[in-house]
Amino acid sequence: MNDNLLNIKLEFAKTAVKMAGEFLKSHLHDELEITEKSRFDDLVTNLDKAVQNQIVSKIGERFPKDFILAEEDGVRHDISDGNVWVLDPIDGTTNFIVQRDHFAVMLAYYENGVGKIGVILDVMTDNLYWGNGAETFKNEIKLSLVARPLRQSLIGVNSYMYRTNAGGLLDLSRESLGVRMLGSAGIEFVAILDGKIWGYFSNLSPWDYAAGAILLAPFGYVTTQLDGSALDFDGRQMMMTVPEGQLSEIRKFIK
Amino acid sequence: MNDNLLNIKLEFAKTAVKMAGEFLKSHLHDELEITEKSRFDDLVTNLDKAVQNQIVSKIGERFPKDFILAEEDGVRHDISDGNVWVLDPIDGTTNFIVQRDHFAVMLAYYENGVGKIGVILDVMTDNLYWGNGAETFKNEIKLSLVARPLRQSLIGVNSYMYRTNAGGLLDLSRESLGVRMLGSAGIEFVAILDGKIWGYFSNLSPWDYAAGAILLAPFGYVTTQLDGSALDFDGRQMMMTVPEGQLSEIRKFIK
Repeated sequence: MNDNLLNIKLEFAKTAVKMAGEFLKSHLHDELEITEKSRFDDLVTNLDKAVQNQIVSKIGERFPKDFILAEEDGVRHDISDGNVWVLDPIDGTTNFIVQRDHFAVMLAYYENGVGKIGVILDVMTDNLYWGNGAETFKNEIKLSLVARPLRQSLIGVNSYMYRTNAGGLLDLSRESLGVRMLGSAGIEFVAILDGKIWGYFSNLSPWDYAAGAILLAPFGYVTTQLDGSALDFDGRQMMMTVPEGQLSEIRKFIK
Repeated sequence: MNDNLLNIKLEFAKTAVKMAGEFLKSHLHDELEITEKSRFDDLVTNLDKAVQNQIVSKIGERFPKDFILAEEDGVRHDISDGNVWVLDPIDGTTNFIVQRDHFAVMLAYYENGVGKIGVILDVMTDNLYWGNGAETFKNEIKLSLVARPLRQSLIGVNSYMYRTNAGGLLDLSRESLGVRMLGSAGIEFVAILDGKIWGYFSNLSPWDYAAGAILLAPFGYVTTQLDGSALDFDGRQMMMTVPEGQLSEIRKFIK
């Protein structure tokens, strides 16, 4: 695809995500309709679905030949097939429900499995992180990021993987200054972009990591399964986002 | 002590903490002098010590007969003896060092072991939480807080206690919507005050919980050891801050 159309799609994505953020803030104090998905602590709200429907409709109007892979309602196009938008309408739904804070809207765009556009909005801070895989911006500022050494860093972790030492995560964490659990992949990714955490280990679905992987790529970060193999953009998988330059250190612990 | 003097001390405490916050923000991008205390991940900076010295000096000038219990440099007066100020100059020092965010200044005042004044400043949001044990304010707004049911809540936890199920904490967490780890007792306490987390379980020193216990008391929260006995305001102890009205539920898990 030519760069011009890619720029158009990037601007479209930024606008769609910002509008979703405004919509969510305007409904922030509504009484939510909350539905349990797999179990009592796996929740979805009417607003997750409303945001997804809004953005899916906009994509369909503007780019009718493109495909969609999204969190709600089983919208699951194969990432390797053509032009695919990957959407998480509210990432951190539990934070959204309980805290009305610390949640994100995430949208990514892939062509035949190759990441081209990533956008994450930290809704309550109004900070929009966006990029094309070569450069990443926070609002109008181009970001730079050099990962700290592990021993001077904090790590974002999934609670289950941390406490069960999945893949050696607890062992790795002992080489750091500590772990943080923020409850939203999007908020963890932007914490890495802001230099506040060094890396992130979790058990995620494609819409949780599709945008973050693109936004961190310019800084030498890799987003893979724990053993280094590629994520499949299909089911949930244990994953990590870490500085590639520190992989030899990481590999002493993470298998 | 008469109420008038207590009000004077409350205003003094608010002003001292706000000035400390301004000082820290004005030095936010300084190169820090970082010293290891007990081990590589137990750190103190020159700014922790500078803030402590500033506030201790002010207390000494203004209330020369009062005593001090503070984090740095072994300033450890017995809480049960007379008028005692309890100070944590930077709570969340690791967050301060790594993130330059998510840290607090905390100051409390006790008379013969009874909490009279609590002040917590979330430095980077500029939100000042303060109260006298009967009422708690966030800046100029009087707070109200009704704890959610555990099953609709998030819990702030210490990473070690969570992963080792200390006192039954992991078991309790399974009855909630999940756990969060923020890396600062002060930031956890104000998250409870803001309704974002339901309770907090950690392994803390007196300066970590002295102010928070006072600020949460008006809302029926108790701050105790895990078995319900009183904290000793001396060494580190495993503690919890939870809604007293839900203790029968909590006691099914926490021993």
